[in-house]
Amino acid sequence: MRVLALLDGTLADPDAPQIRVDDLGLMRGDGVFETVLVVDGKPRELGPHLDRLARSAALLDLPEPDRAAFERTVSLVVDNWTGGREIALKLIYTRGVEGGDGTATGFTLGMDISAKVRAQRADGLAAITLDRGIEPGLAERAPWLLLGAKSLSYAVNMAALREAERRGAAEVVFTTSSGSVLEGPTSTLVLARDRDLVTPPSTLGILPGTTQAALFRSATREGWTVKVAPIAVDELHAADGVFLVSSVRKITRVHTLDGKPLPDSADLHARLVELYEAEY
Amino acid sequence: MRVLALLDGTLADPDAPQIRVDDLGLMRGDGVFETVLVVDGKPRELGPHLDRLARSAALLDLPEPDRAAFERTVSLVVDNWTGGREIALKLIYTRGVEGGDGTATGFTLGMDISAKVRAQRADGLAAITLDRGIEPGLAERAPWLLLGAKSLSYAVNMAALREAERRGAAEVVFTTSSGSVLEGPTSTLVLARDRDLVTPPSTLGILPGTTQAALFRSATREGWTVKVAPIAVDELHAADGVFLVSSVRKITRVHTLDGKPLPDSADLHARLVELYEAEY
Repeated sequence: MRVLALLDGTLADPDAPQIRVDDLGLMRGDGVFETVLVVDGKPRELGPHLDRLARSAALLDLPEPDRAAFERTVSLVVDNWTGGREIALKLIYTRGVEGGDGTATGFTLGMDISAKVRAQRADGLAAITLDRGIEPGLAERAPWLLLGAKSLSYAVNMAALREAERRGAAEVVFTTSSGSVLEGPTSTLVLARDRDLVTPPSTLGILPGTTQAALFRSATREGWTVKVAPIAVDELHAADGVFLVSSVRKITRVHTLDGKPLPDSADLHARLVELYEAEY
Repeated sequence: MRVLALLDGTLADPDAPQIRVDDLGLMRGDGVFETVLVVDGKPRELGPHLDRLARSAALLDLPEPDRAAFERTVSLVVDNWTGGREIALKLIYTRGVEGGDGTATGFTLGMDISAKVRAQRADGLAAITLDRGIEPGLAERAPWLLLGAKSLSYAVNMAALREAERRGAAEVVFTTSSGSVLEGPTSTLVLARDRDLVTPPSTLGILPGTTQAALFRSATREGWTVKVAPIAVDELHAADGVFLVSSVRKITRVHTLDGKPLPDSADLHARLVELYEAEY
């Protein structure tokens, strides 16, 4: 099922047209978004998601999102949800219509979690590495490339996923041209080695992960060492486990990378899921 | 004024919502577009624009756009236009709604040319160079980066224009990190030197220009030499003229680059506009 709440605090029909053709979110991919998981009526990491939405909006010089209005859309969707235990909430915020009065377009759409994502949570997935064409230093040097923003301009991320499918895989690990690990098209990469968890730094031009942050918070309390540090592609093959984490996919293990099986991380995966779930 | 024609051959109200919130064009910037100029009821370079729309769609693995249906939307807008002599037509084609039956969303929106663009056509503009963060070879090596596609994921292009405004300029000339000239965020760069016209090759990961191609066609007939070749940023300062060309801006001269005045190219500009207009 799907429930749609607009930023003005009203519910609307997700099967009916709601957006004008000249909305800059559509015409120019000019807007930002967040995806939030709701379990048993409780949104997870809503604060960090709204923080990141505001940060992305600032990177795009958008007006600051009305936090209370977005919180209200989330409550509206959750309160009107009559489907299963989990909801994937998509919060969208665009520059509004071209030549308009500057009023942003904003809404939250609640959707079911797809069967594919649920299967991947349980079984893991095969991923490939793909060059993202960026190098360390670029994000800072060229902020107009919006490398740290979660913008609506995700055509490249979607193209990368299609390339993975063509190669018989389900997911992508983006890398720099020189072989340093970045992130997935819609996820954060976490590597496990002994009792260490490692994720690449967002200064490389990638998104700081909300789910990764929750996992690291919990892991730290349980005595794990957590690190934010560059990771070379070779290290993925040598790790105890490689995981793609995001709100909707939670902690999903990568069992095969570039066609090569990775060490069996099923037990490790169960342990990390436990750590993550302990946060809620 | 504005006139909107949908791909199914109907006219629709551009001031009313027409697009669902889960259209992938909005949610993911997952679609392609073209901008076509109409003068006195005649669309310019419609064939090359529809060719490029099809090429962009292929790069994004979209279903092939229905050419006849798009031609019909163009006729519909033109036939129902009661405004001025010129129309800017935006042709948009998206992947359709998420989880839908694969039917693309398509429409053509006719709009007035803004006063700003008309002033820039006459007076020229100031531009700045900005690093686009790509290097020669990347487009071919990493097709998933969609570097040659005119996609709806244009947030970076819009951010670059805002950066130009912050620096007191109106336009951007994107460059590689090593200082090779690429293109504008919504235009093609053409350099003039004696009786030579030069534009950078699309193999660098930029769009082949339709207006630039029309200009080169006409210039060749008139005995100019036209070249598709790499251009270093330094060459821009030494040229007789630097121009940003696109359907809507036609041939617009750059009078200032990175704060430095370029040689006066007003006469040269008039000559190139003559060459361009001779095509119609």
